[in-house]
Amino acid sequence: MRVLILGGGGFLGKRLASELLVKGGLDQGELTQLTLMDFAFPEDMPQDSRLECITADFSDEAAIRNILQYNPDVIFHLAAIVSGEAEKNLDLGMKVNFHGSLQLLELCRQLTIHPRIVFASSCAVFGGDVSSVIEDETSARPRSSYGTQKAMVELLMNDYSRRGFVDARSLRLPTIAVRPGKPNAATSSFVSSIIREPLHGKKATYPVPPETEVWILSPKCVIQNFIHAANIDEKVLGPDRIINLPGLTVSIQEMIESMEQITSAEVTSLLSCEPDAFLQSIVLTWPPHFETVRANQLGFVRDASAAEIIKLFMEEEGIVNK
Amino acid sequence: MRVLILGGGGFLGKRLASELLVKGGLDQGELTQLTLMDFAFPEDMPQDSRLECITADFSDEAAIRNILQYNPDVIFHLAAIVSGEAEKNLDLGMKVNFHGSLQLLELCRQLTIHPRIVFASSCAVFGGDVSSVIEDETSARPRSSYGTQKAMVELLMNDYSRRGFVDARSLRLPTIAVRPGKPNAATSSFVSSIIREPLHGKKATYPVPPETEVWILSPKCVIQNFIHAANIDEKVLGPDRIINLPGLTVSIQEMIESMEQITSAEVTSLLSCEPDAFLQSIVLTWPPHFETVRANQLGFVRDASAAEIIKLFMEEEGIVNK
Repeated sequence: MRVLILGGGGFLGKRLASELLVKGGLDQGELTQLTLMDFAFPEDMPQDSRLECITADFSDEAAIRNILQYNPDVIFHLAAIVSGEAEKNLDLGMKVNFHGSLQLLELCRQLTIHPRIVFASSCAVFGGDVSSVIEDETSARPRSSYGTQKAMVELLMNDYSRRGFVDARSLRLPTIAVRPGKPNAATSSFVSSIIREPLHGKKATYPVPPETEVWILSPKCVIQNFIHAANIDEKVLGPDRIINLPGLTVSIQEMIESMEQITSAEVTSLLSCEPDAFLQSIVLTWPPHFETVRANQLGFVRDASAAEIIKLFMEEEGIVNK
Repeated sequence: MRVLILGGGGFLGKRLASELLVKGGLDQGELTQLTLMDFAFPEDMPQDSRLECITADFSDEAAIRNILQYNPDVIFHLAAIVSGEAEKNLDLGMKVNFHGSLQLLELCRQLTIHPRIVFASSCAVFGGDVSSVIEDETSARPRSSYGTQKAMVELLMNDYSRRGFVDARSLRLPTIAVRPGKPNAATSSFVSSIIREPLHGKKATYPVPPETEVWILSPKCVIQNFIHAANIDEKVLGPDRIINLPGLTVSIQEMIESMEQITSAEVTSLLSCEPDAFLQSIVLTWPPHFETVRANQLGFVRDASAAEIIKLFMEEEGIVNK
């Protein structure tokens, strides 16, 4: 079987690719070809005869049309302008996050064999009253352009699936933590920074009050969930392909305390609160409480605790506790 | 003040125009100019020095840009490809219902004074489990491309309002009954036909079982609600501009019985059930039970009974009971 990862050069795309190469396939069959598309790739991409990396812009119709000629069986759609950038540049966010995704669906519609799509949506489709619990039936009410674009694409994924043009499933991702590498323009970037940076001996700040709760999932679990989503039978899903992924509700304070217990007060002393009005205007509208009944029933997974997430990151990064 | 009605040549647009001319304005001020835009107009449009009718295609950017040079204070956006047509022709529905609306928002974004928009959305954004009660927090899960397009535009209306480009409010209309004139390509067209046609001595059919419940609102009430929506202060609405309008839950059987009580068994004998798989595939996914707490609090109105709706139609059409 052939698999395509759009946004395959990003942190999650690359990790998903590695996992698929190790697993050797999905429930549908053995992996024969794995194509990654992104506007740039890191130098340390896996070396594998099944793997091909194509440098292209996701919003470039000719490029995507060309890539789709391979007739991929499964497409993981992770290509996006991140939340902070989409908020600051509405036109760019609309172009890539919305129009690019619509174009992908239109190109899939023209294919003879309609692919399965796993679309990386986001819990940023929710916003407003952060005290209420988000259930499977709760309506998307984004308070950001990024969330708006994701919510619109989810609707399209459902409609184009209903019409049989694709077989999509949209996963609403919690904030993914801990991300390796450098801080990025996602408004949730600090959730990873406050763990990653001090563990590497660097200072970091958080822009919201420490009691602020966030809804998080580790990279390990989200990759497992991407693969699980690709393996679920269309008939099990039914007409609604939108899934709130499981996650963990944790406050910034709790994350810091967990890290201090695992490491030392010396490590957490590198952290400080530095309020940021722009980041607060978005992050503080994200509800951190979810009841993901459907996702749990479908077999999606989450992490057990903030401590587990931190230990997992240290293990992955080869950070030895002093 | 200047008012623009997009889709002003349609049944509701024309009626809204007449009402605005009679009222002489909105809470914002006296009506000085009323511009209607549609691809065609009926011959019996009102004659008034304040009124101008412009024939144009809603998806024609140059035409809309030109019309917006008037800098309307309030825009009623009623332009749409109806549900049945949007289901049969996805490209046309996307072009007009979605891209046309996005283009309108983009053009408004370029204006110096950002207009208030009253957008005619639809309860067709809901679909699926018809036994459940739709509340203000219930998520849009359309089972039609029309509903999908309306739900996407609602999200855009919210986001463009949040950014201050427009001051929009999206009203989710119940099925409007009884519509005068001829049956149209709306999948709900039969809800009006079963009353209108027999009252004019003509036969009519309904494509769903008689116990099927629908969620309806009279033309009189929906016009009142359009005007009310235009009069609500932005601060009262807050960031969420999407409103489920009040309506009346009634079965096809109950509508027929009401008509028989008002008229005679001779009238209702003109009706028959003629199952239609296409219409059933859409109509039977519309939930007919709503709890419109927010709309009620905001002062939107509904009809008291099916009998009242039928009598109102007879009065408007000058039909005298034999």
